[in-house]
Amino acid sequence: MTAANPNPYAAKPGDYLSNVSNFQLIDSTLREGEQFANSFFDTEKKIEIARALDDFGVDYIELTSPVASEQSKKDCEAICKLGLKAKILTHIRCHMDDARVAVETGVDGVDVVIGTSKFLRQYSHGKDMNYIAKSAVEVIEFVKSKGIEIRFSSEDSFRSDLVDLLNIYKTVDKIGVNRVGIADTVGCANPRQVYELVRTLKSVVSCDIECHFHNDTGCAIANAYTALEGGARLIDVSVLGIGERNGITPLGGLMARMIVAAPEYVKSKYKLHKIRDIENLVADAVEVNIPFNNPITGFCAFTHKAGIHAKAILANPSTYEILDPHDFGMKRYIHFANRLTGWNAIKARVDQLNLNLTDPQIKEVTAKIKKLGDVRALNIDDVDSIIKNFHTEVTTPQLQSARKNKQEDNDNDNDKDVPSLASVPAAKRAKPTV
Amino acid sequence: MTAANPNPYAAKPGDYLSNVSNFQLIDSTLREGEQFANSFFDTEKKIEIARALDDFGVDYIELTSPVASEQSKKDCEAICKLGLKAKILTHIRCHMDDARVAVETGVDGVDVVIGTSKFLRQYSHGKDMNYIAKSAVEVIEFVKSKGIEIRFSSEDSFRSDLVDLLNIYKTVDKIGVNRVGIADTVGCANPRQVYELVRTLKSVVSCDIECHFHNDTGCAIANAYTALEGGARLIDVSVLGIGERNGITPLGGLMARMIVAAPEYVKSKYKLHKIRDIENLVADAVEVNIPFNNPITGFCAFTHKAGIHAKAILANPSTYEILDPHDFGMKRYIHFANRLTGWNAIKARVDQLNLNLTDPQIKEVTAKIKKLGDVRALNIDDVDSIIKNFHTEVTTPQLQSARKNKQEDNDNDNDKDVPSLASVPAAKRAKPTV
Repeated sequence: MTAANPNPYAAKPGDYLSNVSNFQLIDSTLREGEQFANSFFDTEKKIEIARALDDFGVDYIELTSPVASEQSKKDCEAICKLGLKAKILTHIRCHMDDARVAVETGVDGVDVVIGTSKFLRQYSHGKDMNYIAKSAVEVIEFVKSKGIEIRFSSEDSFRSDLVDLLNIYKTVDKIGVNRVGIADTVGCANPRQVYELVRTLKSVVSCDIECHFHNDTGCAIANAYTALEGGARLIDVSVLGIGERNGITPLGGLMARMIVAAPEYVKSKYKLHKIRDIENLVADAVEVNIPFNNPITGFCAFTHKAGIHAKAILANPSTYEILDPHDFGMKRYIHFANRLTGWNAIKARVDQLNLNLTDPQIKEVTAKIKKLGDVRALNIDDVDSIIKNFHTEVTTPQLQSARKNKQEDNDNDNDKDVPSLASVPAAKRAKPTV
Repeated sequence: MTAANPNPYAAKPGDYLSNVSNFQLIDSTLREGEQFANSFFDTEKKIEIARALDDFGVDYIELTSPVASEQSKKDCEAICKLGLKAKILTHIRCHMDDARVAVETGVDGVDVVIGTSKFLRQYSHGKDMNYIAKSAVEVIEFVKSKGIEIRFSSEDSFRSDLVDLLNIYKTVDKIGVNRVGIADTVGCANPRQVYELVRTLKSVVSCDIECHFHNDTGCAIANAYTALEGGARLIDVSVLGIGERNGITPLGGLMARMIVAAPEYVKSKYKLHKIRDIENLVADAVEVNIPFNNPITGFCAFTHKAGIHAKAILANPSTYEILDPHDFGMKRYIHFANRLTGWNAIKARVDQLNLNLTDPQIKEVTAKIKKLGDVRALNIDDVDSIIKNFHTEVTTPQLQSARKNKQEDNDNDNDKDVPSLASVPAAKRAKPTV
């Protein structure tokens, strides 16, 4: 925020634990995403999605447990054989029955999870913390003995007892897990709470910290970002955030967040211009539309409408954009066909139409457009027709002399702000032609 | 997180500045929302939306500047005459021309904004901080002289110089504004940055602090929440978050966040069961679909799918829900027609069908359902057919003896966890009938 710090969104020197410029992605579209209401991925679709994620550059791909169903196991084995750059993980309950099947699938790592909140201990598996610790140690040592990565995660971490949590994490860290996981399974966590828990955990374990955030209360992206600030290293994402209920941290949304903080890291590591294709692939597969307000790929993510915004964007896009659409293979759009438009936006359109109008003329035609925009929704054809008619009027010799006085009046108008009908005295207003 | 604190999401005693349980909403659907690409609200629609927001209980309704267009002025006047409980605001540039028009519309308050970032100072209005301060003082004193509320906001606050910001806020606070506003106009801010700026500003001004967050990087809800923690009092929202680009903090999403932190305050103040109707009203008006993953009203916001989730939800919904769907007039749904299903979910369906099966029988039919779910997407009719066929088979006398041995085997199965095909030895598995 000061001149001494050229990028105010970068980690501050004080944030010495921050991994904002050194994070990894675990994509769980093929695990958490399978738990999305509409999901049914056949083998071919799973492979297509896995290849697309690998090409994008995710660090890990997490797959549904091989004990979930026969086909889940076969698909897991098939994806392990693809030879992707991304490491392949599968996600299992903290149970030897599951672990024995998982290690035979060919995965690079196993993600183990067990519920630690009083809710899950009472109503789900019914085990106490001693039992959980005992199972965890057995499963972890078994998986490690096979020479593959192991992550131990609590479930519903933010409603678990802090001392219980730290005890179990400390225990598994000593055995030598690759990662411990914090999971906001119900989507209740808020950013400062996340920061505190991650910082505290960071002081207890030496392994990496992975975080998994559900989006029930709309904080999944912010929580992921704040977890990285606190020292977490890995974030679970899925394409469009699909998962149980309304899902988890979305891959695209997190990229929007991270590129602001660590542009070089993000741009060099991930193929950002592939986000749109991957989102379309998954959206088609699960039969949903891309949300209208999706970060980056929502239809209006780079659309500027109010006259004052359009004016500044035309002068310098950074005025009203923190994301550069070109980084994502997208384009910005100046919405000029509406009553909030301004003469700078209309001037840009006049240029696109390759017409020649003076600034006062453009202000005059802008007033006409705003007048019609007050009556009904406009489309581009409406505006183009008004501009073209106006252009014909001012360039046809027999109509020119009648207009001359008006133009001279307009030239004296020294209002440098975006004009609006109300700020132009009534006498100067063009009569609407429609 | 400890037993001593019954609600771990409530403000902590240390957060003495927190307004998490004492916030107000400024709904800007009819101002920021008009800047959404698809918006065109005629007078009738604006009035319908204003009445719905008033009925819901928002504290303020913000309208487009009366100088934006002739009709904008008339609509502003019309809404002021409705006699709503909510206070009516309009939003203007920091300019006497705008202020003179605004105070004559009948509004309860005027929201003044001016760009303070170097980007906006250079490329938008081209004014320096002295000019900004001078204009601000003039406009504020004029609006105050009319006996109506006044808010002064910077624009693009997170890319403005901190000292410049604090100077101008201090100046306008001394004159006696009702509120100062922080605006993340480009959607670049992150929660900890928000917290710091709000806390700092809180130490400089005595008036209320209002915050406005764009959602370009997916943090608009979390930033709003964290701003309240830091001592902000008012949050700008719009229905579905509609606004410039991909919009601002959404009304519904913020309610999802706030009900977790301040359930009594939120439930007593706002008619939460109206959220769905208001969102549908606005979505229809601007011709968008409710995003599939929208908090609260997304089609799957309360859908539970994985067997282990379904099992626990059936025992106690709090296991996997931080939001109670009934608070919003919504219902939860257990998705059982898929390969990730478990026998507890199928048992619930068997009960709904009013059929009588033993637990081992339900485990057997669950295996059949998972088997078919491995081959293709299932719908409810598929599952019901399998259950009904199975029920006929086990209850028809001539078929019973052939099944007896199998059942006895299953009774010895002491796996208390959610069963899966893979965890049932192959010899015990029912042969698929389809």
